[in-house]
Amino acid sequence: MQVKDTETGFFIKLSRGEKVMQTLTDFCVARGINAGVLHAVGAVKNTEIGYYSLAKREYFFKTFAEDREVASFTGNIALVEGKPFIHAHAVLSAMDDSLSCVGAHVKEAEVAVTLEVYLTPFPTPFVREYDEETGLKLLKL
Amino acid sequence: MQVKDTETGFFIKLSRGEKVMQTLTDFCVARGINAGVLHAVGAVKNTEIGYYSLAKREYFFKTFAEDREVASFTGNIALVEGKPFIHAHAVLSAMDDSLSCVGAHVKEAEVAVTLEVYLTPFPTPFVREYDEETGLKLLKL
Amino acid sequence: MQVKDTETGFFIKLSRGEKVMQTLTDFCVARGINAGVLHAVGAVKNTEIGYYSLAKREYFFKTFAEDREVASFTGNIALVEGKPFIHAHAVLSAMDDSLSCVGAHVKEAEVAVTLEVYLTPFPTPFVREYDEETGLKLLKL
Repeated sequence: MQVKDTETGFFIKLSRGEKVMQTLTDFCVARGINAGVLHAVGAVKNTEIGYYSLAKREYFFKTFAEDREVASFTGNIALVEGKPFIHAHAVLSAMDDSLSCVGAHVKEAEVAVTLEVYLTPFPTPFVREYDEETGLKLLKL
Repeated sequence: MQVKDTETGFFIKLSRGEKVMQTLTDFCVARGINAGVLHAVGAVKNTEIGYYSLAKREYFFKTFAEDREVASFTGNIALVEGKPFIHAHAVLSAMDDSLSCVGAHVKEAEVAVTLEVYLTPFPTPFVREYDEETGLKLLKL
Repeated sequence: MQVKDTETGFFIKLSRGEKVMQTLTDFCVARGINAGVLHAVGAVKNTEIGYYSLAKREYFFKTFAEDREVASFTGNIALVEGKPFIHAHAVLSAMDDSLSCVGAHVKEAEVAVTLEVYLTPFPTPFVREYDEETGLKLLKL
């Protein structure tokens, strides 16, 4: 990981082999970032993405082992039980002639080539709390 | 809807059942937001998305009744005939084993679980005006 | 191209027929923008997008001649050999009943109807340098 401070945030470059969610979460912990938004482009592999079934009240995840382009990656940072948690969704395109896309909630991904992230922190923490209706930890603003 | 002010904008949480475009437009009216950009992640249903055919000079919309992840949602805010108008495009992924994506211009969507929006307002209004060549209300900067 | 300055960046409208990457790169050169991030929505045609095969150490590009919605477009700006270079990934949806998406690294695209871009510049340049391991010009932060 390499980081460059800008006037409004951090430009972060993750390198081949780094775990995206773990590395970015560790960065938030280290820098005391308890609220923010982020975007990224790059390429990943061993990606675990999925969706939340409200009917079954559980997440379903699927792993894509192959290299995929990160066509889009958008997320935010909030505190869950006092620790920074990154909530991100991504669109991943196939590295073949189809260039077809899958998309979902990101559990984890490993950088395949590079991942270029822009993270804007906010000074006042956002907090997620368990929501009985949905079974999810939702933002309480 | 819950809102938290940040140094550069508003972090907005929409809840299950809320109409995305209507609620965000009402928020812009209430806060006097006449220019800005926004992004979101979450899950929606009863989504009406589509595209503009330049050849036929009309929009074609399609409704997706089922819950879908909002893998990406990007847009901007400008005045149309003096009122804030949100122009947003989204990528919506299927909540099934395919995780396949559809994407387009967003007409309306209903929050299925939650929608987490970050909106950055700008003080000087953007304006859209009817453009004869395309038949659309395009930005006039 | 029309441009409006905001407090934190530039809102840019590209018009039908303009080359997206060339026009935005020229804008960065003209304004001395050597670092930044950008997002866009709109519609494009004659789009050349593709992916980098790490195994073969080369890019594979595919051209989509037809009009497509820009469902998502995210990128950043850095210097390559002293000149601004835009690295952008996009998700493009079909203007037919499928609304299906393709996504990848953007080489070039032509504006089909309009493209609405928000660009945030940073004062300190980002630099890309050739990386022996991947064969790519990666950010050196």
